[in-house]
Amino acid sequence: MNVTPFHQHLEELYQNFLSLKEGNVADYIPELAKVNEDQFGIAIITVDGHVYQVGDSKSEFSIQSISKAFTYGIALEDNDQSFVESKVDVEPSGEAFNSISLEPDSGRPKNPMINAGAIATSSLVKGETGQEKIDRIIDVFGKYTGRKLDIDFDIYESEKNTGHRNRAISHLLRNYDILSGDPEEVLDVYFRQCSIKVTCRDLALMGATLANDGVNPITGIRALDSEQIPNVLGVMASCGMYDYSGNWIYRVGMPAKSGVGGGIVAVLPGQLGLAVFSPRLDDKGNSVRGIAVCEAVSKTFDLHMLHSTRTTTSSTIRRSYDGSSIRSKTVRDISANRVLDKYGKDIRVFDLAGDMQFVSAELVMHEIMAYENLPSHIILNFRHVSSINHAATQQLCDLSTLLTNKGKIVIFIGMPKSFGFTNKLKLLLTDSTNWPMMDFPDLDRALEYCEEQLLENYDWVPLSTSSPVRLEEQPICLDMSNDEIDYLENHLKRKTYDTDQVICCEGELADRMFFVELGQVSVWVNIDSNRKRRLNVIKEASSFGEASLLGTKKRIADIVSDKKSVISWFEPAALFQDTSQISLNIQKKLFKNLASQTFEKLQRSDKEIRSLSK
Amino acid sequence: MNVTPFHQHLEELYQNFLSLKEGNVADYIPELAKVNEDQFGIAIITVDGHVYQVGDSKSEFSIQSISKAFTYGIALEDNDQSFVESKVDVEPSGEAFNSISLEPDSGRPKNPMINAGAIATSSLVKGETGQEKIDRIIDVFGKYTGRKLDIDFDIYESEKNTGHRNRAISHLLRNYDILSGDPEEVLDVYFRQCSIKVTCRDLALMGATLANDGVNPITGIRALDSEQIPNVLGVMASCGMYDYSGNWIYRVGMPAKSGVGGGIVAVLPGQLGLAVFSPRLDDKGNSVRGIAVCEAVSKTFDLHMLHSTRTTTSSTIRRSYDGSSIRSKTVRDISANRVLDKYGKDIRVFDLAGDMQFVSAELVMHEIMAYENLPSHIILNFRHVSSINHAATQQLCDLSTLLTNKGKIVIFIGMPKSFGFTNKLKLLLTDSTNWPMMDFPDLDRALEYCEEQLLENYDWVPLSTSSPVRLEEQPICLDMSNDEIDYLENHLKRKTYDTDQVICCEGELADRMFFVELGQVSVWVNIDSNRKRRLNVIKEASSFGEASLLGTKKRIADIVSDKKSVISWFEPAALFQDTSQISLNIQKKLFKNLASQTFEKLQRSDKEIRSLSK
Repeated sequence: MNVTPFHQHLEELYQNFLSLKEGNVADYIPELAKVNEDQFGIAIITVDGHVYQVGDSKSEFSIQSISKAFTYGIALEDNDQSFVESKVDVEPSGEAFNSISLEPDSGRPKNPMINAGAIATSSLVKGETGQEKIDRIIDVFGKYTGRKLDIDFDIYESEKNTGHRNRAISHLLRNYDILSGDPEEVLDVYFRQCSIKVTCRDLALMGATLANDGVNPITGIRALDSEQIPNVLGVMASCGMYDYSGNWIYRVGMPAKSGVGGGIVAVLPGQLGLAVFSPRLDDKGNSVRGIAVCEAVSKTFDLHMLHSTRTTTSSTIRRSYDGSSIRSKTVRDISANRVLDKYGKDIRVFDLAGDMQFVSAELVMHEIMAYENLPSHIILNFRHVSSINHAATQQLCDLSTLLTNKGKIVIFIGMPKSFGFTNKLKLLLTDSTNWPMMDFPDLDRALEYCEEQLLENYDWVPLSTSSPVRLEEQPICLDMSNDEIDYLENHLKRKTYDTDQVICCEGELADRMFFVELGQVSVWVNIDSNRKRRLNVIKEASSFGEASLLGTKKRIADIVSDKKSVISWFEPAALFQDTSQISLNIQKKLFKNLASQTFEKLQRSDKEIRSLSK
Repeated sequence: MNVTPFHQHLEELYQNFLSLKEGNVADYIPELAKVNEDQFGIAIITVDGHVYQVGDSKSEFSIQSISKAFTYGIALEDNDQSFVESKVDVEPSGEAFNSISLEPDSGRPKNPMINAGAIATSSLVKGETGQEKIDRIIDVFGKYTGRKLDIDFDIYESEKNTGHRNRAISHLLRNYDILSGDPEEVLDVYFRQCSIKVTCRDLALMGATLANDGVNPITGIRALDSEQIPNVLGVMASCGMYDYSGNWIYRVGMPAKSGVGGGIVAVLPGQLGLAVFSPRLDDKGNSVRGIAVCEAVSKTFDLHMLHSTRTTTSSTIRRSYDGSSIRSKTVRDISANRVLDKYGKDIRVFDLAGDMQFVSAELVMHEIMAYENLPSHIILNFRHVSSINHAATQQLCDLSTLLTNKGKIVIFIGMPKSFGFTNKLKLLLTDSTNWPMMDFPDLDRALEYCEEQLLENYDWVPLSTSSPVRLEEQPICLDMSNDEIDYLENHLKRKTYDTDQVICCEGELADRMFFVELGQVSVWVNIDSNRKRRLNVIKEASSFGEASLLGTKKRIADIVSDKKSVISWFEPAALFQDTSQISLNIQKKLFKNLASQTFEKLQRSDKEIRSLSK
């Protein structure tokens, strides 16, 4: 694949900030101070899994406080949410990262991003022993990064030997019963968790996973339950950048977390993860280059989450059209077509797209309810919908109830099975008479069903239901004299087919012109060796194989009887050999009628194209 | 219009929380304590301007601290941003709403949502006098609410007479030179601003205006510059709910602001504004029912902004297709059609949709650059794009540069004039050879241009360029004998038209079958009394008016010569009266060729429908 210009922009940013050498590496533990302070890497990974990286994006460093956000996610998964909240609050402390900030009476830490809160959080990870807890943390972090992570034992030993303040905090937490059991064991989990080695690319992928509703966009593996995403990102938004958090949300506008190892990860929900690694820190404990790069990236690429895009009708409803402009692929006789031309507006299709959520579902609701005369048949096509959240599901239930109560037919099609949407709908709708119809395999079948209903409602009487249609009733024989009909009749052969019998096959010579005298046939094409698609349905008083009039080619589809059918045919080549006046007149009329019929189809197709192009 | 079920849900919520009577009305000023404490209203307004309201949504109350967020927006518009920031920081204080929270050395208030910061903010509103400042505030607030607002003078007097703490703060700010001039005058502006009377509906509309990028979704009037939106919402997100802000972003997930008058406004960017009014407050100064309702609404309707939806290829690229499946409406001769069938893949159209921003533009870039053999002609259709932000504009410039440097033809069509997109592109692209082509009025003209280029590239030679095409070269006369051609030739009439001459008009009797012997004509339909749309172009060696062969109807379009053209025609009705063998044979062949030709068009249309339906 070609490299996109965004790489170049990132390279420029990198070069611009390379000379920024303010700040100092963390030295509160000796091992951290040994890091090469010139290192500098930037990585961006989108929710589609596109990776951009420059500089030292593959160097490992210790994750430090960045781990706090991800361990908080594990704690929320492993416990009842209110229990977690009873142990750690979610308010910014307004103080430095190593502040103790406990609630006066309860001893509850202000939030999970300060050390006190993070130690409490680590204790909430599932596991009988410290080893089990840290194994679980490393395992889950590995789902975010798509690779197995290791601990930097030098850092860990250094933290363990010098972490007096954290030791004090954990004993204080034990005193308040925020921690239970041995505080040293939890502290050991916390020190190990902070010593996990990651790269800048790892962090960007961890961010992209949060941006992608908890699913790693490269491996497709879920790292965090969807329902915990707003909780984790919420705490990152209010407390992730120590006492620079207010400025961060104002200037950068992405939930983020930094660590004294020099890393920062920022998340633009639904879009991307951004990570910077540069060990020199400001006096608040944030990477100096990290902050500069994130501010520049947010500004340059308009990534502030509060500078949001609108949910509009045009992105929710791809298009909407009625059953007079787009028809099922069923070939019907002229009188049926007249009825559908006239009353097809009573069928209305809405092609939906994108993510369905509150406002988009509400837009659909409004669009439909805005009809002064509601159509009798309403089809919602979900084929281009990428997700439907709970609120939208509820609204679609409401819509279905509202419309079915008004006596309307509601049809939902094209819901991917993975949504579990059909079941959710049925669960929410306690009264099954309000279920939308959801069993049609595609739009064509749904349209066909609606058309049949319209024809029935408008008292359309088919030419024949029991006795075979006579040749003079076939549109292709329009205006033929009795003699001409008799002549043609003499050239006809006739056969009766049972249900599901093959009449002709793809690849055979197309040398016959067929008439459906009774019954119904379908035209099927092979999509691949396993799948077929129904192209057309041909009803009584219609013909097929007209191409044989225009020269012999190979058939491009299978024709199969849908029910017991009487089919007659003649071979044009034989007819055309006869140059008598009567044959010539028959030929002229066949061609004329074929041209008229094709012309009408072309007009219908052009109408459909105009509807589809809207 | 019909009422949607969402009204019912809101009504249920209202009933559920009606019994919640905890908390007390604010009593720090006597007048506020007089309010009817049972009042309760909820309002939601979407960015499409749909209004939902229940309860006391139309009762007026004083805006109080909610004004701080909106006045901060005015201060940012009226001053250089860095100047505003030098007077007021944007960090949460971690303290109560009436805390003084000034920076130790500078006296800079921690943020514009505490009283100290808000008084400083009011002083930054443009205006020589206090009166001018408050006039401007009332005027701008009125743009948000779509109606003129008034001050509650009882509240104002009460605030003024008892606001000792605020008076102390403003003198302190004057001491630090955060305020200049008379602190009493600024204080008066601040008291008046807090006493402005609003309804719950007003607040929802103010929120919806922020959600809608600063434009009031009902009046269409801009209340705040787009670039200030993330600043105002950023401060609301970190500091809007006093020392409940962390919990708020965690539980509700919408930037918000509350006031001791009992109002809360919350903003879901790009989607809606939500407001609640209920005067009983908790000990942090937030409306008790307000918090309960907002938490319930966010949870029930999945409105947490950090539980975001994804930007995916399927919502950005509506569809993509090549020039062999969808053609311009130009009618070309058979040999040209063959070339385009074969090489049309070298033209590629991308129909884009929704809001173009960093990730969506990047998706387009990737989609195009993923072609192993890049098409020679790339058309980006912006007709369904609702906005293009700066970052996306930059990326589209990069894309254009990249492709034109590779010798590709890049065409952008369908950009609404209001985007100013064309000019922005030209400004960003310093080298005009990298400009995409942007002058085509529609997709059809762009396709036509690309097709002409392909035909030229593949050495297609038109049948004729200077001498008229002979009748036997017309596809509709295929297989005719010399005698038949001569016969038909004898029935022909012929005329030469100059550029832009009308050949026939909509509504005229369609009784002629025409041949383009030289030149080119266009088919135009009237969209309305002022606008026409070009439907087709018909080139040499093609015919028009074939419908006249099938029976006489009225013409449904105007035919106009595009350049000097030689047009011949015959009248089918006259020809058909002749029942001689030769006439019969000619008729048969005309009908057969017409059927073939229409059949081919139908196949092309069906292919187009398949492409469009994807």
